[in-house]
Amino acid sequence: MAKLNENYLNLKESYLFSEIAHRVEKYSTANPDKKVIRLGIGDVTLPIGSTMIHALHEGVDAMASSDSFKGYGPERGYDFVRNAIVEYYGRNGVSVEADEIFVSDGAKSDTGNITDLFDKDNIVMVPDPVYPVYVDTNTMDGRNIIYIDANVENNFLPMPDKNVHADIIYLCSPNNPTGATYSKEQLKEWVDYALLNDAIILFDSAYEAFITDESLPRSIFAIEGAKKCAIEFCSLSKTAGFTGTRCGYTVVPKELTITASNGTVMSLNAMWNRRQSTKFNGVSYIVQKGAAAAFSKEGMAQSRENIKFYQENAKIIADTLAKKNIRFFGGINSPYIWFECPNGMDSWAFFDYLLENAQVVGTPGAGFGKNGQKFFRLTSFGNRENTIEAMERIEKLLSK
Amino acid sequence: MAKLNENYLNLKESYLFSEIAHRVEKYSTANPDKKVIRLGIGDVTLPIGSTMIHALHEGVDAMASSDSFKGYGPERGYDFVRNAIVEYYGRNGVSVEADEIFVSDGAKSDTGNITDLFDKDNIVMVPDPVYPVYVDTNTMDGRNIIYIDANVENNFLPMPDKNVHADIIYLCSPNNPTGATYSKEQLKEWVDYALLNDAIILFDSAYEAFITDESLPRSIFAIEGAKKCAIEFCSLSKTAGFTGTRCGYTVVPKELTITASNGTVMSLNAMWNRRQSTKFNGVSYIVQKGAAAAFSKEGMAQSRENIKFYQENAKIIADTLAKKNIRFFGGINSPYIWFECPNGMDSWAFFDYLLENAQVVGTPGAGFGKNGQKFFRLTSFGNRENTIEAMERIEKLLSK
Repeated sequence: MAKLNENYLNLKESYLFSEIAHRVEKYSTANPDKKVIRLGIGDVTLPIGSTMIHALHEGVDAMASSDSFKGYGPERGYDFVRNAIVEYYGRNGVSVEADEIFVSDGAKSDTGNITDLFDKDNIVMVPDPVYPVYVDTNTMDGRNIIYIDANVENNFLPMPDKNVHADIIYLCSPNNPTGATYSKEQLKEWVDYALLNDAIILFDSAYEAFITDESLPRSIFAIEGAKKCAIEFCSLSKTAGFTGTRCGYTVVPKELTITASNGTVMSLNAMWNRRQSTKFNGVSYIVQKGAAAAFSKEGMAQSRENIKFYQENAKIIADTLAKKNIRFFGGINSPYIWFECPNGMDSWAFFDYLLENAQVVGTPGAGFGKNGQKFFRLTSFGNRENTIEAMERIEKLLSK
Repeated sequence: MAKLNENYLNLKESYLFSEIAHRVEKYSTANPDKKVIRLGIGDVTLPIGSTMIHALHEGVDAMASSDSFKGYGPERGYDFVRNAIVEYYGRNGVSVEADEIFVSDGAKSDTGNITDLFDKDNIVMVPDPVYPVYVDTNTMDGRNIIYIDANVENNFLPMPDKNVHADIIYLCSPNNPTGATYSKEQLKEWVDYALLNDAIILFDSAYEAFITDESLPRSIFAIEGAKKCAIEFCSLSKTAGFTGTRCGYTVVPKELTITASNGTVMSLNAMWNRRQSTKFNGVSYIVQKGAAAAFSKEGMAQSRENIKFYQENAKIIADTLAKKNIRFFGGINSPYIWFECPNGMDSWAFFDYLLENAQVVGTPGAGFGKNGQKFFRLTSFGNRENTIEAMERIEKLLSK
């Protein structure tokens, strides 16, 4: 008899965003005349810049004639994309090599699939609150997860504790959901901890393009020693508006090795290459054309304009919260604003309160872990009009 | 200390097609004046039809303006694609429902990732010769693999043996590499065996569009009982020339359940949905636009023209082999021709012989398993001129 992976029985049935959608739908059905404004899901809304659009069209045109037709490409991505990423890193002062880069359909796939490389018997350290994918993917594999508290006391930037051991550590900076961003000094402490513990840091850098403070690291590889202990996941979703176009990339340094029980030195770069060339067949050529354009100077400048627009939204949200004396985090180097629910409210209760009384949808912090129980996330990805209107409604509601 | 997945140590280092590429490169470097014709890798060469190209452009255009911009889509694919697939199945006389369909970036990803749903403790049955991905992905998980012989005696269509038990069974029909295609009666035997053994059939149907004999099943769901024991993997790679555009789909029937050790009835459809919504973020909207067009009547008609062209190539290859009294399989309902190496030669020896004396590249059967040791695969995906020239060279060489 076929035996299923029974770890799936340990997953929570309902995914955060499904529950939100369910509650919003119920409200909207009961109140069809009310205009609901959604600042919940972290999905971009502005169109992709013309340089990328042009390149995407070129990609499609290539498929229309025998001379330029593209069949199977290299599983890890075309050289023209990987070289563009190397240059992009270089412009940010970080040196990586083309054969350390793996182009994929998105950071969610890579942060999920990376667990394939690890034994079941590893202690996985995850901050709380956290992006649910880290927890769910390790639960699917039956790994032991320990949590570290991210809270007001540590500005939602938990630091390593030398008395607690972990083998695999998830860090996300700028953070989803809190928007908190590690400094170089703080990341150095994590790298040192990982090196001391022979641990691997899985560094989610999907929001790096939102960093405006130039002293903050946009890559963990800006930290000395990180190439011996870290894998970095990046995405064009928020950087270039590719949430629906789908492209990400993962950097696995060639220096990153672990010695197996039989003494063999295993390269994580070689393993990931083997994993991807066995279970993946590369990203659409069309999308890769668009991705390469996103790393060009013109493409980057266009995407920067979009990011600036979202940052202005973030400021509108932050200013309202500040005016109402609500403590918040993020919003400056991140598209997310994470704030304390007023009057010590529970986050799902606040969700309902906001939906019913201001018709604004956000994300309850409890969906990201116990330390989010009294917090709430708003995103800056809405359009300007809606963002202003939502914050006016919230201001009015909280002035009652 | 982080512990890696040491099953990776049991993988063969070099992938078949890398070894071929290596030998061809070596030969070409030493003989720069010789024109090498490649009929090795199963990659299409004809451009994508205009209906799909038009839809792909529309997909790109949607990304260029706020009104039509698409962000995150449903992880399992847009309704417009899944409904088009339901209709496509219907035209082939098979009934599936939209929520049984999962759109992905390709059948390779899905046949690889599906192993996530199964416990390590399953006996996996794989035909020999076989597409290497089935073996490698289960080796990565440390599962026990047993082989069943596909050979001249059974026309490369092995049938179940009631004395041999398996929990998970891989079948590929039309077959890669042999081109052999199961009849309905034969598949019915497999379905009955699976039902009797509470086993799951993982049915790779990537080449179904090449079936011309209307009595042959294009889907395992044409067989009664299959929805209780099978998952089907399909692809637009060969159907619509999407090897570089990337789109596939997997059908997981809602009736397909397995009872867990604690008595919980687990739905594989629900599990795959959870897996995909956790570790995948859907296929590019642009590509999905192209995929939906591929299922339209116009799109299908255009793709059929391409398939007809490849089938004519297959006939050219088959006719030459027949003329030289070489026993071959496939080539009629499949883009692959699988033939016995002349004079009992070993397949890698024949590979070198063909490369050196006729400058034709094929795929040595040994790369697919021990039963391929004296066989060779040619594909019909070349252009006409090259296919004719390759077969003229082979005919001349074998007449010596």
